[in-house]
Amino acid sequence: MTIRVAIAGARGRMGSTAAFAITEAPDMEFVGALDYKYDGWYMNSGSLTQQQSGVRVYTSIAELAQQVRPDVLLDLTDPEAVFPNAQKAIALGIRPVIGTSGLTLEEIDQLKCRSEQKGLSCIVAPNFSIGAVLMMKFATQAAHYLGDVEIIEMHHDRKLDAPSGTATKTADMISEVRTPHLQGHPDEQVNAYGARGADVQGMKIHSVRLPGLLAHQQVLLGGEGELLTIRHDSFDRKSFMPGVLLSIRESMRQRQFINGLEQLI
Amino acid sequence: MTIRVAIAGARGRMGSTAAFAITEAPDMEFVGALDYKYDGWYMNSGSLTQQQSGVRVYTSIAELAQQVRPDVLLDLTDPEAVFPNAQKAIALGIRPVIGTSGLTLEEIDQLKCRSEQKGLSCIVAPNFSIGAVLMMKFATQAAHYLGDVEIIEMHHDRKLDAPSGTATKTADMISEVRTPHLQGHPDEQVNAYGARGADVQGMKIHSVRLPGLLAHQQVLLGGEGELLTIRHDSFDRKSFMPGVLLSIRESMRQRQFINGLEQLI
Amino acid sequence: MTIRVAIAGARGRMGSTAAFAITEAPDMEFVGALDYKYDGWYMNSGSLTQQQSGVRVYTSIAELAQQVRPDVLLDLTDPEAVFPNAQKAIALGIRPVIGTSGLTLEEIDQLKCRSEQKGLSCIVAPNFSIGAVLMMKFATQAAHYLGDVEIIEMHHDRKLDAPSGTATKTADMISEVRTPHLQGHPDEQVNAYGARGADVQGMKIHSVRLPGLLAHQQVLLGGEGELLTIRHDSFDRKSFMPGVLLSIRESMRQRQFINGLEQLI
Amino acid sequence: MTIRVAIAGARGRMGSTAAFAITEAPDMEFVGALDYKYDGWYMNSGSLTQQQSGVRVYTSIAELAQQVRPDVLLDLTDPEAVFPNAQKAIALGIRPVIGTSGLTLEEIDQLKCRSEQKGLSCIVAPNFSIGAVLMMKFATQAAHYLGDVEIIEMHHDRKLDAPSGTATKTADMISEVRTPHLQGHPDEQVNAYGARGADVQGMKIHSVRLPGLLAHQQVLLGGEGELLTIRHDSFDRKSFMPGVLLSIRESMRQRQFINGLEQLI
Repeated sequence: MTIRVAIAGARGRMGSTAAFAITEAPDMEFVGALDYKYDGWYMNSGSLTQQQSGVRVYTSIAELAQQVRPDVLLDLTDPEAVFPNAQKAIALGIRPVIGTSGLTLEEIDQLKCRSEQKGLSCIVAPNFSIGAVLMMKFATQAAHYLGDVEIIEMHHDRKLDAPSGTATKTADMISEVRTPHLQGHPDEQVNAYGARGADVQGMKIHSVRLPGLLAHQQVLLGGEGELLTIRHDSFDRKSFMPGVLLSIRESMRQRQFINGLEQLI
Repeated sequence: MTIRVAIAGARGRMGSTAAFAITEAPDMEFVGALDYKYDGWYMNSGSLTQQQSGVRVYTSIAELAQQVRPDVLLDLTDPEAVFPNAQKAIALGIRPVIGTSGLTLEEIDQLKCRSEQKGLSCIVAPNFSIGAVLMMKFATQAAHYLGDVEIIEMHHDRKLDAPSGTATKTADMISEVRTPHLQGHPDEQVNAYGARGADVQGMKIHSVRLPGLLAHQQVLLGGEGELLTIRHDSFDRKSFMPGVLLSIRESMRQRQFINGLEQLI
Repeated sequence: MTIRVAIAGARGRMGSTAAFAITEAPDMEFVGALDYKYDGWYMNSGSLTQQQSGVRVYTSIAELAQQVRPDVLLDLTDPEAVFPNAQKAIALGIRPVIGTSGLTLEEIDQLKCRSEQKGLSCIVAPNFSIGAVLMMKFATQAAHYLGDVEIIEMHHDRKLDAPSGTATKTADMISEVRTPHLQGHPDEQVNAYGARGADVQGMKIHSVRLPGLLAHQQVLLGGEGELLTIRHDSFDRKSFMPGVLLSIRESMRQRQFINGLEQLI
Repeated sequence: MTIRVAIAGARGRMGSTAAFAITEAPDMEFVGALDYKYDGWYMNSGSLTQQQSGVRVYTSIAELAQQVRPDVLLDLTDPEAVFPNAQKAIALGIRPVIGTSGLTLEEIDQLKCRSEQKGLSCIVAPNFSIGAVLMMKFATQAAHYLGDVEIIEMHHDRKLDAPSGTATKTADMISEVRTPHLQGHPDEQVNAYGARGADVQGMKIHSVRLPGLLAHQQVLLGGEGELLTIRHDSFDRKSFMPGVLLSIRESMRQRQFINGLEQLI
């Protein structure tokens, strides 16, 4: 059976890459685009057109639901749009797969509640990169044995914020399993403000920003006489597609709310 | 309760490091050394002496068993000595923890058989490095998602053999989980013999040998637009000690034959 | 004074990136395109058009010379086209800047001869990456002190040939300065064919090919107790542009034949 | 002609390694040890003895000079001892080779003055690692072309100070050649204090401290679409010996004051 997928945010860079990947997947079909404008236009191989070819754009999720009966709504828009979209989708029996960070804890709670009332899955995955999720899981597992951890994340210098969300999440995940303890020399003497990085849950995070870089992170775990390094390099948006497809497939198998791709891997 | 540990091979480099680590461990006691000579001498802080101080050396495991009643025999000698030692140890009710590679499949089968007949654990761990075992496990798990794998292992130039045992074992472990497939360009054109490394189970292994290096391995797993790298650096023999102590502790908890530290982690 | 630049191969990926970079450079002007077809068409922001806007395409270098009087011909075509283009350019008083590998030694000799007879520079730069050239130069300088060298080059798995041209050139450059000697253990025992890589001038080259990778090389130089690693990552074709612009500027300053960007850095 | 070398600080870890290296060097002889105690004792293969075997210990540099006529005094003691030692050595016609950091600018000026008055070389080399010096030189040269620089230095967690002296010196050396400019996004938003590292001369330095690590530094230089990384790993004190021997040999060739091994490479 083919999974019928609608996309919100299909005009964006992630969205158009996802539209292409879903179209290519043998078990999926891209059936409609949800947008806040261009109602009645069509999307064809990534371009908008007024000619009737490709997939129709809808500004109303109700009409989208009625016309093309999607199984899943892949939502790659911003946090403001995501929440009402997901609420309506669940009400209409469409499974939301949400690839945006920025939902509040309260919004997450509400989606969880509605999803489980309906027995319909709802997946929130702020990071669709399977490689990045594996890095976080492995680092967490390794921290049982090698409890001293530092994280170096490296991005292009157009990135505004530091540290990255993935680095902070990695530290949070590790902090849940390891015994809290002081790292480094207790009498450490820092002669230049910031040299030792940011302290997040007792671990140090270092954020490198240079032109040329794309998106890279390494987690370093040290033990007596050894070092374990888990590194992820993200070179291209295409690296998110296996995670998108996996989430869509899992949304058909599950019946509950799932927060984070790491729950599915 | 304190675990009473005898060591075979205590004069060697690994052995003396282990003797020290066991002596330091709060839940263990180093109770006797098994050797093929120096019967009746004593080992004290890593040196042999004829004065009665430290731990006695025995050339007979039977006498060792009778005099100091060890729970565990940590055997760090060579494959020739290991097998008869382990057989006798099991017969005497002592749990062997064996840190040598080179046992034949037949010898392993026999030890497994005797260990399970007696309901007494016997642990074979050719590599006591927890970090290296984690690297192998993570690489194996990641290969489910990122199935194209190459391994670069790097050692000092005094190492005779290539590829390393750990690299080969990593490829073997991965090959058990991944769908076999051809890697690289099908029409690959190799202009200098050996450039693409050794093919082990369809994966490429590259062995670097340089003065200065210690013992390092990285497993590279590639997917569309991304790379996951799992790297282990072993800087010092001390890095094996957590694995030695963990194996000794586990040998008291288990009642069967265990092949590989990865079964315990 | 503005440097007037014509481009052969402007429709290609490197060519269109270069056309954009030259157009952006404050001291240069993109004045014409040399092609084997589309005579009389125009190039405008990377697209071909029959409307008279942008830069004209010529199939005759003589006509190109007469109409737009370029100072420099940047040639990014294939080896077959490059040689006659460069000969004619020199005859017409236009300085060739050639970004293609594959010229024969004899062709190089002829270009050198003509360039020097005319007192007009001619630059051949098979690799316009300043970063890659720096890597090669530094590795060569370092090999005076740290004479044991291995090279790991890593590319996407669509690359056909191994080892890469840059890796081979690096080994060649190093071999010119270091005392030849045997590397590794003299009694090395290779248990899997190819594990130790390709031997190029006594150095080992290892070629990794994985999906996800772009173009990466590291040169490892080992000495007693230490390792120096020089690594270059090329993430995007834009990284070649500073080398292209530098070569064009230098071609105005020089009056002789120059083989390799490394002569200019 | 054999170079006659006396060592101050020969009982220390660096000193005993150096004594061994000098004894092994075919063109050098270890002729005497300068110490603040043990006058009249002997040093033999790294141990002190009262028996007349090996090299004599002197507490007076004048007596040392008279008895064994050294060409060079290799001084590996602390800053307090180094300065008077070097002054007296120059007065006695012995060339100081000083491997300690911590001399004040005034002391350095005085040594320079005396060394040049006498026409006798005096070499101050706080870091004898040729590999580290090459890293600093290459990074400085590369910064001409790739002007955005971050430094990651990684050491064991017993190291008290951060950032390391080598990291700070690298930034200082680079700052002398590059055009000052702001790195990173001008509107950078740092959400965890210290994430972006220490700012040294406009470059960021990140100091990692983990058990297991030895002494490592990487300099990352980014440009549009590319990254150049120069990394030095120091695994063992022996890595300093080529720099010690080179400095001793150069001290015989030079007649002036030399500050930093980088002046000799």
